[in-house]
Amino acid sequence: MRIAIDAMGGDYAPSEIIAGALQGRDVLGQDDEIVLVGDESVIRDHLVALKTPTDTFRIFQAPDVIGMNESPIESLRRKPKSSIAVMAHAASHRQVDAVLSAGNTGACVAACQIRMRTLEGVSRPGIAVVLPTYGGPVTICDVGANIACKPIHLYQYAIMAGVYAREMFGIESPRIGIMNIGEEDAKGTDLIKKTRLLLKNDPNLNYIGYLEGRDLFEGKCDVVICEGFVGNVILKLSEGMANMVFKAIKAELMTRNKLLALWFKSVAKSIFKKYDYHEYGGALLLGVNGTAIICHGSSKARTIKNAISACKRFYDKKINTQIVSAISKTLVSNNGE
Amino acid sequence: MRIAIDAMGGDYAPSEIIAGALQGRDVLGQDDEIVLVGDESVIRDHLVALKTPTDTFRIFQAPDVIGMNESPIESLRRKPKSSIAVMAHAASHRQVDAVLSAGNTGACVAACQIRMRTLEGVSRPGIAVVLPTYGGPVTICDVGANIACKPIHLYQYAIMAGVYAREMFGIESPRIGIMNIGEEDAKGTDLIKKTRLLLKNDPNLNYIGYLEGRDLFEGKCDVVICEGFVGNVILKLSEGMANMVFKAIKAELMTRNKLLALWFKSVAKSIFKKYDYHEYGGALLLGVNGTAIICHGSSKARTIKNAISACKRFYDKKINTQIVSAISKTLVSNNGE
Repeated sequence: MRIAIDAMGGDYAPSEIIAGALQGRDVLGQDDEIVLVGDESVIRDHLVALKTPTDTFRIFQAPDVIGMNESPIESLRRKPKSSIAVMAHAASHRQVDAVLSAGNTGACVAACQIRMRTLEGVSRPGIAVVLPTYGGPVTICDVGANIACKPIHLYQYAIMAGVYAREMFGIESPRIGIMNIGEEDAKGTDLIKKTRLLLKNDPNLNYIGYLEGRDLFEGKCDVVICEGFVGNVILKLSEGMANMVFKAIKAELMTRNKLLALWFKSVAKSIFKKYDYHEYGGALLLGVNGTAIICHGSSKARTIKNAISACKRFYDKKINTQIVSAISKTLVSNNGE
Repeated sequence: MRIAIDAMGGDYAPSEIIAGALQGRDVLGQDDEIVLVGDESVIRDHLVALKTPTDTFRIFQAPDVIGMNESPIESLRRKPKSSIAVMAHAASHRQVDAVLSAGNTGACVAACQIRMRTLEGVSRPGIAVVLPTYGGPVTICDVGANIACKPIHLYQYAIMAGVYAREMFGIESPRIGIMNIGEEDAKGTDLIKKTRLLLKNDPNLNYIGYLEGRDLFEGKCDVVICEGFVGNVILKLSEGMANMVFKAIKAELMTRNKLLALWFKSVAKSIFKKYDYHEYGGALLLGVNGTAIICHGSSKARTIKNAISACKRFYDKKINTQIVSAISKTLVSNNGE
């Protein structure tokens, strides 16, 4: 597997990305190759600073960078030589098998979708994130690629995320639920109700019904389907909520026993490590014709390494082939709504 | 203030509701009155069981109950003698000033909206819930009354929730944000972008911009505006997330030190008490012509008592009068989109 890594994207780029790429070599095989995408001289300088030979990686020259806050489509048009554009271009020309970026998520999704195209039969790509919960890993799709979902999109997210959960976590028949505001069939928007019918009528899916926010962490499901807007809010809310709970605990402990408050730090640390979704190393952009991983903007070297590892597993397990096969078995056409 | 309480709605009705009504008398004044709505003989039996004179409360007879899972509109049509329907009817005929129910939320919203009508100038009612966060109380509107929002609805939620936060928590100029998937102006759905323009251009609002899920708990804002679907997910996710974190901490502590795990229970309990949104006693249905409080289905006596107290404050502070005044100052018409 050849993987192109956007060296310039992310809050800690390029240093942490390059450091992550170096660490990532440990999880790859002899036939695998990492290619860095970005400004050649900047990358070389960083390699020198890391006391690493400058020819450690092939480099695809990309003098421009798309900022984290730039408009995706507009910036891609204005900056064809940006690291994200060059990276996606390389994948579309089969110069690499996989791409990875911690840069502007919207630009990354758009570049992959436009350049790599979608898998046969797939209508819209969706970002799948794995939330490590007390009840086991839960795959959420979509968390931000698509904020104008149609039933066919959500339906295909269920199929793709189901294949993903099965292959990545060995769950034979992943339990799939739709995020909703109640469990009763009559609840929810039109989009939700129409999606429900598609999932319910597909004998190849283990559809378990509507889910509410609180069900996510209770081990009730393996896959949760939702609109990109809702999934994005869920993801960021979970982060913020966990931080707040630990802050509240620390404050409470400080009023009771300062030594215990100090000791609790190590407890919090080990819990964060266990339930931190960064551990899973980024989010798969399911449905594009290739392997594309999007990392959190705040990713450091460890996350990049984990993402490279996830990328390798996704590629080796030929998950895309299985997605195409699963989608081909459905009765609803790509153009249907 | 005369308040009608739906004695039959909720997971623990009627016993916990009636017990809550009894406790609620402590937070009311001499001129206030609680009226129970429900099956007279059932309510009397419960009062006897609680060793309370059966003439403690006036009772409005309502032999039917709308189940928690029934379709709101349909059940209201089929059961005009249900406790929710009778309660809303009483409010619409000015037999009471306020209503309170822990029953079917959808039916309660529909009954209040249809019977009590909306305040002058208000387009659609929205449910406002107060989340006690580490950074102070945050009012979220809407959390489930309206899952087909238009910009004018969200705009009016901002106005109404702003007045609410100011009056209830003494925040002079509440910081109002819109829940979105990024902070940049270009992010989000059409609905979000149009709402932003309305809020930004209103000199009477302290609009602070888009918020992401993680900002909710950081003390960045006093009011968060979102579609009912998103708000509902946020609310239930927060509950589930907090539960999971404490479970995870307990499990981690058990492997380290069982005595400490036991001791930690009291820490968890005091944190839950501090950050439990039930403490605020239910959610206000803002925008209806009257005072309507909707309680969580799982409400027990203490929550009902707190809700009665919140109801009294809302009524005494004449918040509805202030909402009408604030709405009348806006330039966007009720019918505008």
